[in-house]
Amino acid sequence: MREAPHLTFDLDAPGVSRGHLLVPGGADRGELSLPVFSLNKGEGPRLLVTGGNHGNELEGPLVARRLIEWLPEEQTCGRIIVVPVLNPLAVEAWSRNTPLDGLNLNRVFPGRADGSVTERIADAVSRVLLPTADTVFDLHSFGPTWHFPPAATTHPIADPDLMARTVRMAEAFNLPLTLVWEYNDTAGMFDILAQNQGKVFVCTEFGGGTVGADNLAIYEAGVRNALIALGLVEGKADYPTFRQQKSGQTLETHPCDDLRSPARGIFEPRCSVLDEVKQGDLIGILHPMDSISTESMDIRAPGTSFVLAIRSGVHVEINEGVALVAGPLKI
Amino acid sequence: MREAPHLTFDLDAPGVSRGHLLVPGGADRGELSLPVFSLNKGEGPRLLVTGGNHGNELEGPLVARRLIEWLPEEQTCGRIIVVPVLNPLAVEAWSRNTPLDGLNLNRVFPGRADGSVTERIADAVSRVLLPTADTVFDLHSFGPTWHFPPAATTHPIADPDLMARTVRMAEAFNLPLTLVWEYNDTAGMFDILAQNQGKVFVCTEFGGGTVGADNLAIYEAGVRNALIALGLVEGKADYPTFRQQKSGQTLETHPCDDLRSPARGIFEPRCSVLDEVKQGDLIGILHPMDSISTESMDIRAPGTSFVLAIRSGVHVEINEGVALVAGPLKI
Repeated sequence: MREAPHLTFDLDAPGVSRGHLLVPGGADRGELSLPVFSLNKGEGPRLLVTGGNHGNELEGPLVARRLIEWLPEEQTCGRIIVVPVLNPLAVEAWSRNTPLDGLNLNRVFPGRADGSVTERIADAVSRVLLPTADTVFDLHSFGPTWHFPPAATTHPIADPDLMARTVRMAEAFNLPLTLVWEYNDTAGMFDILAQNQGKVFVCTEFGGGTVGADNLAIYEAGVRNALIALGLVEGKADYPTFRQQKSGQTLETHPCDDLRSPARGIFEPRCSVLDEVKQGDLIGILHPMDSISTESMDIRAPGTSFVLAIRSGVHVEINEGVALVAGPLKI
Repeated sequence: MREAPHLTFDLDAPGVSRGHLLVPGGADRGELSLPVFSLNKGEGPRLLVTGGNHGNELEGPLVARRLIEWLPEEQTCGRIIVVPVLNPLAVEAWSRNTPLDGLNLNRVFPGRADGSVTERIADAVSRVLLPTADTVFDLHSFGPTWHFPPAATTHPIADPDLMARTVRMAEAFNLPLTLVWEYNDTAGMFDILAQNQGKVFVCTEFGGGTVGADNLAIYEAGVRNALIALGLVEGKADYPTFRQQKSGQTLETHPCDDLRSPARGIFEPRCSVLDEVKQGDLIGILHPMDSISTESMDIRAPGTSFVLAIRSGVHVEINEGVALVAGPLKI
């Protein structure tokens, strides 16, 4: 008989517990043990915090590790479960997807007990961890070749009450950006599974590119703000400073807000995230590199908007995404 | 008979020329054409500017493209040859090495005419381009998982006169950092080949991590400063602002200044590049991720120094480099 995924400790024990979520082995590899921290202070919100869903977004695991250090001093009620790394195989490879089966963990939820390793991780998380929580923070970032501001995000949700509660929760991070992201490729996302079960799920996007000390402090402050808003921790929320600004805004973006490359070549960013642009402002330049005689091409803002994300200087193919713009939330 | 590498145009023609450096085909693939720009204004310094030596360091190709746009207006004498991308196969793959043969272009100079594609590129550059120049700027950056300040660097050179001229040239970029880098793994570097021929060779390290608009402006200003110092362009040199500072310093670093990870896990940077640290100051933290019960380990400064480079938040193996420190130049 196949072993079922399970925790190595009792979540209902009071106080701090440390152990593992056991993901059973399968045809492709043996059992995986994901380290899990839990702090049970009785009545109150039940929160699950996860990091390392994608293996090249390491801000989440680092903020989760910091959380584990100060929660025992600061958590006053409720239960918080922290899993710093959901996909250790991807994290060790600095790869978005799991190298072993090529799958994106955040597209295979709820997973399969008899699937490949990525599907088995999703299955274990869906069956063992998700039922323990009424609120989930999944700590992502935008990946290595993008600039992205520190943000708390959600996708649009059909249930207006859950949508309103989710946006309020996202705004409580007090990050420079709260984002409602209409996105077509959502099948199999952890978000969708949790929201379909009526849970408040906030996906943070803690920047892109290099993970530095300055930005980690912003991300940690954002999570602390959210814990204060949930009543799990006492203290005063604050807006962390980003690009000399100490305030946040709530925006929405849609599939039509993707700016794509007009040709293959090297993309040169010419603006910064959260810059406000008008129609025709220069966003970036595409330099065809096969010939220096071919003119470089300007990529310009389609209308008044904020630059939400911009690609790093990197070689892109024709029609590959190079920037995302956004407008004020109207949903 | 094997075709020899050659340029598709005459370098001695006056004014602007645009064409290609043809790298002959071999057993592994056909001919490669590297776009080349040349501007010949007669007597004066003969400069070669190259980018894209490593495929995941795209600052160089972008600054080279910008240079090509304004040189026709601004260059007053001499000859400047610009090759934005030395290794298009690596650039298209966003890979340090060439995917086809796995070789690091900057470790195979002077190359081999009958070698694999990376060796054939090195051979073409060594035989066709290098003899045309008395000064070379090879525009690198530190790669995706590091923070590095905008810097002009050289390795120590045995000839004291060439060493002094090279450091002066590097300092003329007026970048936040001029660095003399003692480094063990130098066999096959473009630098060494050029310096052995008595040429002034400066390797810029235009930062690490994400390529953004703010930093590209600093890098471009650095190259313009160097062209002014060479007398190729008229104007006033300036110090570009980096981390709110408008000044530069000259440092040296040695193999013993490498800080390495005490265990495998995720490295958390806790300081920023060019921070001045004293013995015992916290540089970063190594978080073992296999168990949350294993204590995180502090990585501290071995002595008074400047933080030259710091690893991004990324999974590292035991004894992998996580930071580099440096002291004032004494050579």
